[in-house]
Amino acid sequence: MPRISNKGVSMPESPIRKLVPFAEQAYKEGKTVYHLNIGQPDIKTPQVALDAVRVHSLDILAYTRSEGSEGYRIKIADYYAKNDIHVKHDDIIVTTGGSEALLFAFGTVMDVDDEVIIPEPFYANYNGFSTASGVKVVPVISKIEDNFALPPIEEFEKLITPKTKAILICNPGNPTGYLYSKEEIKKLARIVKKHDLFLIADEVYREFAYDGATHYSILQEEGLEDYAIIIDSVSKRYSMCGARIGCLVSKNKEVIKTALKFAQARLSPPTLAQIASEAALQTPQSYFDDVIIEYEERRNVLIEELNKIEGVQVGNPKGAFYCIAQLPIKNSDAFAQWLLESFHLNGETIMVAPAAGFYSTPGVGLNQIRIAYVLNVDSLRKAVHILKEALKVYKD
Amino acid sequence: MPRISNKGVSMPESPIRKLVPFAEQAYKEGKTVYHLNIGQPDIKTPQVALDAVRVHSLDILAYTRSEGSEGYRIKIADYYAKNDIHVKHDDIIVTTGGSEALLFAFGTVMDVDDEVIIPEPFYANYNGFSTASGVKVVPVISKIEDNFALPPIEEFEKLITPKTKAILICNPGNPTGYLYSKEEIKKLARIVKKHDLFLIADEVYREFAYDGATHYSILQEEGLEDYAIIIDSVSKRYSMCGARIGCLVSKNKEVIKTALKFAQARLSPPTLAQIASEAALQTPQSYFDDVIIEYEERRNVLIEELNKIEGVQVGNPKGAFYCIAQLPIKNSDAFAQWLLESFHLNGETIMVAPAAGFYSTPGVGLNQIRIAYVLNVDSLRKAVHILKEALKVYKD
Ligand SMILES: Cc1ncc(COP(=O)(O)O)c(C=O)c1O
Ligand SMILES: Cc1ncc(COP(=O)(O)O)c(C=O)c1O
Repeated sequence: MPRISNKGVSMPESPIRKLVPFAEQAYKEGKTVYHLNIGQPDIKTPQVALDAVRVHSLDILAYTRSEGSEGYRIKIADYYAKNDIHVKHDDIIVTTGGSEALLFAFGTVMDVDDEVIIPEPFYANYNGFSTASGVKVVPVISKIEDNFALPPIEEFEKLITPKTKAILICNPGNPTGYLYSKEEIKKLARIVKKHDLFLIADEVYREFAYDGATHYSILQEEGLEDYAIIIDSVSKRYSMCGARIGCLVSKNKEVIKTALKFAQARLSPPTLAQIASEAALQTPQSYFDDVIIEYEERRNVLIEELNKIEGVQVGNPKGAFYCIAQLPIKNSDAFAQWLLESFHLNGETIMVAPAAGFYSTPGVGLNQIRIAYVLNVDSLRKAVHILKEALKVYKD
Repeated sequence: MPRISNKGVSMPESPIRKLVPFAEQAYKEGKTVYHLNIGQPDIKTPQVALDAVRVHSLDILAYTRSEGSEGYRIKIADYYAKNDIHVKHDDIIVTTGGSEALLFAFGTVMDVDDEVIIPEPFYANYNGFSTASGVKVVPVISKIEDNFALPPIEEFEKLITPKTKAILICNPGNPTGYLYSKEEIKKLARIVKKHDLFLIADEVYREFAYDGATHYSILQEEGLEDYAIIIDSVSKRYSMCGARIGCLVSKNKEVIKTALKFAQARLSPPTLAQIASEAALQTPQSYFDDVIIEYEERRNVLIEELNKIEGVQVGNPKGAFYCIAQLPIKNSDAFAQWLLESFHLNGETIMVAPAAGFYSTPGVGLNQIRIAYVLNVDSLRKAVHILKEALKVYKD
């Protein structure tokens, strides 16, 4: 029998995959499970996007251009201009989700055994894309005590080797909710320019900045034109995760030319979803205002309630819709499984993501979980109450 | 300025990409261009598929499961059963086009520097996926004189090294139109079992078999369960190229488990397109019957007309909708460009794909072009007439 690849063996499992059978068992037992484990918002997709596919007049569902339809890219450029990010449609390649943009970015700037520095904890699938690309993740640890602020420059410089090709940040951050300041972006700009590295910024949560803060994009930073690559997506912005539309943006012509070759190999991004995504750009500002108010309230409730639990430490997320909570336990993998398997409060329990999957440093984050606040305020209150009661009885 | 990766530099351009500016110039000059260069059929998508998205009742366009929605996979398994391919829904991972299924298959079975043997000429993007995966393509040459039949077993065995992990065939073949016989599949089965290799079969053109021939799938061959991986797609079957839905099928549990990890990293295939693809499975047999009759007629006209041109040699395609034509010229790259740039017959010209891009052996196929018969019979007649007149005056 032929053997699968070493790469295949090393591909990480999704941090919550192991929990799925336990969740399914919990349903079977009639338990209600509050899902705090996954970034699938419960927010409605803008009507204008859903309607656009209802009224489509295609009679052949054909390939689009590999870089995405021109009309759509022109409108994306307009969207960026409104966000004070000045790019042309030629600087944009439409991808199948932010996921594919990440894969193209990795392939474009890194060879096998090259290194990418990523502030840790980070979006778990960066591990998957790195393994798939044969690239090594070099984590630079950001700490819950510092609310996950960017580590000092020296910490980065210590890690730079001749194999380092890029720094990857997620801003605002999944799983930390951290929003980088303008000063921090400038700090990163200095490092990448000094060491000739690419700066890849995953900005899929751009709109989700709270407390009146504004997001500062790496492409707003002057002088970064040749270094900056933005990863973007409609998934969270318009609650259109299933569209699978994102983009890669760069003013570096070589980057675009190269990423386009990866795009050509897979022919084109999905056509119907591009129609929906193009229409989504007409979403009125009021939609976002409402969404931000909703998430801010959720965040406030979540953090307030978590802080009431003894022994729980939590950062204060300024963006995205996640937080990392440190619990008075030893192993959150076992805890998360126990919650589904052995615990309930009046027939209800919660599903959380063990945080170890968001670290590449072994042994770190074992007492942490990631909570996605994608549920309404009432459900969140109930969920945190369940967590509180569970911690009272849990022994590890 | 940071430098892109060597991988990025080596990524092949699409064989027709270089021609696009010349095609655009030809349009500007008011020329009519017959597109024989790309596998985008002009056949209408089944109404049932287009309607399914028109009446969708989603209010959140959410992720589906990474392996595709269960309902859809169950129906795909039914479709296979009707084609005498017996698999369970758990043997199927829904992918973003056959393209992504190829990428997952490469990642699942091959490491960097591993080798895959592919009968040549082959679908050009196999080069792209190999480069992206760091895998080496080892071509085994099939010849136009033999109508692109499978080379003898010895030719394969000569090429097998400790790094060989798989044989990849395309059946029916793009660009050759070759349909493998049952005996040839059995021959391949013997090789892969003897040498413990995977057999990957790209069967995206399964339905397109002519002259009453039936397609024989590698998963119909008993004893290949652990070795066989099918690449499939709705793109050509239902003229739904823009859906970006395909699948990877294997009865080897390790393969599915591993491919699923690649699938999880990119979250899910497109949701709307899965709805359309699931509905497409209701397409009545009469649709396919009509399509096959149409393509057979096109093929007949194309081959008959090509054979009338002096100095042109062409195989007789038994499947798919492509053929390789050998022309009395030296360099089809230059010829294809000249057709767009400098030639017209009453304001009309043709765009063809130079065949060199379908070979990985340098210098082979230079006097060949690939013709996609995705145009109606009248247009095809005109197009071949243009080719004939062009060859009369062309000098290279
Ligand atoms: C930080 C981050 N980047 C990228 C993605 C990928 O999203 P998509 O491929 O749906 O655009 C996600 C999804 O959760 C994410 O959280
Ligand atoms: C032989 C072959 N395999 C795979 C593909 C990929 O098609 P898709 O990604 O649209 O399913 C194509 C498209 O032309 C093809 O010709």
